[in-house]
Amino acid sequence: MTNATISAGLIKGADRRADNVHWQHMAVDKEARSLAKGQKPCCLWFTGLSGSGKSTIANVLESKLHLASHHTYLLDGDNVRHGLNRDLGFSDEDRTENIRRVAEAAKLMVDAGLIVMVSFISPFKADRRLARSLFEDGEFIEIHVDTPLDVCEDRDIKGLYKKARAGEIKQFTGIDSPYEVPENAEIVLAGAETPPEELADEVLNILRREQII
Amino acid sequence: MTNATISAGLIKGADRRADNVHWQHMAVDKEARSLAKGQKPCCLWFTGLSGSGKSTIANVLESKLHLASHHTYLLDGDNVRHGLNRDLGFSDEDRTENIRRVAEAAKLMVDAGLIVMVSFISPFKADRRLARSLFEDGEFIEIHVDTPLDVCEDRDIKGLYKKARAGEIKQFTGIDSPYEVPENAEIVLAGAETPPEELADEVLNILRREQII
Repeated sequence: MTNATISAGLIKGADRRADNVHWQHMAVDKEARSLAKGQKPCCLWFTGLSGSGKSTIANVLESKLHLASHHTYLLDGDNVRHGLNRDLGFSDEDRTENIRRVAEAAKLMVDAGLIVMVSFISPFKADRRLARSLFEDGEFIEIHVDTPLDVCEDRDIKGLYKKARAGEIKQFTGIDSPYEVPENAEIVLAGAETPPEELADEVLNILRREQII
Repeated sequence: MTNATISAGLIKGADRRADNVHWQHMAVDKEARSLAKGQKPCCLWFTGLSGSGKSTIANVLESKLHLASHHTYLLDGDNVRHGLNRDLGFSDEDRTENIRRVAEAAKLMVDAGLIVMVSFISPFKADRRLARSLFEDGEFIEIHVDTPLDVCEDRDIKGLYKKARAGEIKQFTGIDSPYEVPENAEIVLAGAETPPEELADEVLNILRREQII
């Protein structure tokens, strides 16, 4: 696509008379960024238990999207808890505010034209509903990484389940705090047996089918 | 640039033996995104009085960068106060938190490979210093839109100075709240006489000279 094509299509409120010598500014909006990047910006919201494989799958997916020249970003605990949300603790109120800000940051990035992956346990339906409500229809794609608790606990990569069982961590999702299973997730991934590689391909195929990429 | 070039350069911890048949994931990091987008991601922080021309210049600049196929985003009061920062008021504490979150959001977007423009009055040195501290060397470019108060007040596009003079708005920057002039801004733009178009070109030339674009 040439710049001329972009600008002809997207100049807003421009005076198109040939004798208009003023350069007209185009509105650089979501549509313009989407066209320039050749993708439909959206938020892929990965939810699931600790150890379900959310971040692993999201990382593999991001690699594949990047190799296919797509523009992505992955928001997870690592880059958010130490920055944007560093002032938040783990009370119910703070957990909700944590999710809200992540969703708002994701919304800004979708507005910037990116395919944004969010990888957060996000155990409560109300919080996921709030996140979804920020986006336009079709922009929010909930992906439930559905790995049974016993499998996650067996993996226990970070040793957190052991600590939760010992009472060293309180309100741990799946142990002494509920995980509310999504009822209407756009995508459900069977995280127990299928390798992350194949699960990422499943998502990739759906994104192609839905003409997001 | 081909995908092969990117992946060969950036595969991290990959086993490069020819008999290694496993597909290795590349780390999609800031460097990878920067290469793919053909730009050095950075934060252009526009500071100046209300009515100085910050947002107008940033908008023109964004149009020009977009036409040149660059990947940008503009964070300003409009898309932040109603979303990410909707819980914040105008107390000193909230104003500082407002700037902090905007800077953190900008940092995430720079990490995503974008050239991010931030347009906020940001009158206090301490807040701008905090914002700068989040970025790596050379990533934070402070742009002081230096338009004298009387010019801004004459323009009074939003009618805010009139209200501030009438005492209807308290703690208005320039009237009953100070604007601390930047002493070490990377770029100073003379906003009184020069049209926004030319000021945007000034910034564009500097970005080229600094090999950001």
